[in-house]
Amino acid sequence: MNTKNYYSSDFRLGIVGGGQLGKMLLQETRRLDIGTSVLDPSEVAPCRLGSNEFTVGSLTDFDTVYQFGQNCDVLTIEIENVSVEALQKLEEEGKKVFPQPHIIRLIQSKIRQKNFYKENLIPTADFISFENKAELMTAINKQQVPFPFVWKQSTGGFDGRGVAMIRKKADLETLPDVPCLAESMVPFEKELAVVVARSANGECRSFPTVEMDFHPEANLVEYVFSPGNVEEAISDKAQELARMVAEKLGIVGILAVEMFLTKDGMILINEVAPRVHNSGHLSIEGNVSSQFEQHLRAILDLPLGSTETIQPAVMVNLVGDEDYTGPVYYEGIEEIMALSGVYVHLYGKAETRPFRKMGHVTIIDPDLEAARAKARIVKEKIKVISQ
Amino acid sequence: MNTKNYYSSDFRLGIVGGGQLGKMLLQETRRLDIGTSVLDPSEVAPCRLGSNEFTVGSLTDFDTVYQFGQNCDVLTIEIENVSVEALQKLEEEGKKVFPQPHIIRLIQSKIRQKNFYKENLIPTADFISFENKAELMTAINKQQVPFPFVWKQSTGGFDGRGVAMIRKKADLETLPDVPCLAESMVPFEKELAVVVARSANGECRSFPTVEMDFHPEANLVEYVFSPGNVEEAISDKAQELARMVAEKLGIVGILAVEMFLTKDGMILINEVAPRVHNSGHLSIEGNVSSQFEQHLRAILDLPLGSTETIQPAVMVNLVGDEDYTGPVYYEGIEEIMALSGVYVHLYGKAETRPFRKMGHVTIIDPDLEAARAKARIVKEKIKVISQ
Repeated sequence: MNTKNYYSSDFRLGIVGGGQLGKMLLQETRRLDIGTSVLDPSEVAPCRLGSNEFTVGSLTDFDTVYQFGQNCDVLTIEIENVSVEALQKLEEEGKKVFPQPHIIRLIQSKIRQKNFYKENLIPTADFISFENKAELMTAINKQQVPFPFVWKQSTGGFDGRGVAMIRKKADLETLPDVPCLAESMVPFEKELAVVVARSANGECRSFPTVEMDFHPEANLVEYVFSPGNVEEAISDKAQELARMVAEKLGIVGILAVEMFLTKDGMILINEVAPRVHNSGHLSIEGNVSSQFEQHLRAILDLPLGSTETIQPAVMVNLVGDEDYTGPVYYEGIEEIMALSGVYVHLYGKAETRPFRKMGHVTIIDPDLEAARAKARIVKEKIKVISQ
Repeated sequence: MNTKNYYSSDFRLGIVGGGQLGKMLLQETRRLDIGTSVLDPSEVAPCRLGSNEFTVGSLTDFDTVYQFGQNCDVLTIEIENVSVEALQKLEEEGKKVFPQPHIIRLIQSKIRQKNFYKENLIPTADFISFENKAELMTAINKQQVPFPFVWKQSTGGFDGRGVAMIRKKADLETLPDVPCLAESMVPFEKELAVVVARSANGECRSFPTVEMDFHPEANLVEYVFSPGNVEEAISDKAQELARMVAEKLGIVGILAVEMFLTKDGMILINEVAPRVHNSGHLSIEGNVSSQFEQHLRAILDLPLGSTETIQPAVMVNLVGDEDYTGPVYYEGIEEIMALSGVYVHLYGKAETRPFRKMGHVTIIDPDLEAARAKARIVKEKIKVISQ
């Protein structure tokens, strides 16, 4: 088989993880009729539809992932929490695995990730790492870690979990006994993100710098604005930093780089994800190529697409209302569909739970301010509840 | 069940026909997580993926379509050649069927369609209809039908089949013995099309007037340009006519209206399709809402979307090269993917045949001339062949 004959052929792209990120990736593989095989532990995962093959199985079990990968030509992930060992073995045996397993391993651990920034002189908030809670407590008692600080568990944190603001000793009580970081609290002005794609041949393209607004309580992205409302010099610096991280990592595929813009104009890397990312969803409608198409292009060694802005965009996450659990009902959805340039994406989850990511809405408008105004209406009108 | 709870629920939209039009409709049902059930005679039809249920069966067999429809809440079609009788019975039994079966029946027959235009004073080329070939021959012998004329079989014509230019008696020899039309040859300047959507509540929105260029031999659309390069007054007239046809029909769903712009500035209706249409594919990237999303909105009684142009667009059909039959290979696809604003859509057909519709490419650019130039490159570079 000609390895570049991906289209309407026997070629199989394996996707480890079958959630919403995979689902949006499948929209692109369907458009190009690229065959896919998806692994997910849930038989009702969003990717159960639209994939050529769908396998139910654990993402963290070595044998399951290894078996799964053997029937694929190229492998990718849509979540970091996977058996890197299995991917590594597949890679050693000649499979193309992108992002490369050693990069997934590095990023899986916040301690390794922060050490990587330090070693590569990539600006990031100061930190100290601890192997367990006892080590952390000892350091605090010796006053080596001043309050306030940000506690982050090294592995397994996701969607706002595994992070805590520690202002006083009492806040430490509920923390689990796991490897962790104590990070200086950064007095930031804004949170920015840049989604970068890098191909095996070294071609590198980044999407415009976006600005993220977080829900104060759930620590989930609430709004994303593209382009971000920052000076050009700041945006350029963010772009440069993001590409630098992608290149130092040598990643193949999408890398999402989250940054803090400090009150004194510095940019610090917060964290990165070696995959398509919430901060890039608005590229589906807002940019010439979407991050999902771009990821496919990067991992399949196709020419990267243009990341140019078509229209300014705002993204609103649709998360489950905190008071409802059960079969989902999207109250007000028709009212927002009546607005021009409003695109509703539902992830295909039948059950809602407090703060569960159920979908997102992208609003495009030639005028970013008009898009922002519509986003506020969207936020106000739609409720993810259960009847 | 609340009938408007389409999303991530038990609601089922039945689609009769599982080809490329259905496949592009499924991209929208997946985005909104609206459940679908598709019927198609081929087990390798493009809609085999992305639908919640896929049934293999004849579209023209009464029992098959009737059985299929009973498990759906709303029914639609992606091809006209279906058992209208089954749809009619389902409608009588209370199912929502859009477009309405009596409109499908009317449009299935070119004779009925042309009579409808005549009765409703809708401008169209002059014609005479015949029940069989003998009737046609008699009229020709009596010199009631002057050469040249356009012969059209009344039913079953599709993608350029069932139409012939008749310049002399010898051209008649190979014509089948079927009900047919003899239509005056219209000395046209351009072929235009307008895609209109109409909801059950009467809301009506049309997409910008597009211009179509046909392949002279295969009689298939080769290029579509949006907006069409015509004076505003002409475009307005085309819009008005298209809406008039939709309203006179009382259709619910998308109606694609193909028109001739004659050399003396008249607009004549050529034919209509009661479904999403090749002339509207470029709305996926070129307009705020696509024709596929709009069709869903219309048949599900949701507010219609904006049809505004985001960027001028050109569409190029990808049809099988006339010299190849066999497993498809898209030669040159990477070269065209390297161009900015070029979107390849492959329909998921494993086998190519001469002139088989295999996909399309949409090119968007802020400047229509630049998009046209890119379209020429696309046309030149890509070949649908077999290795």
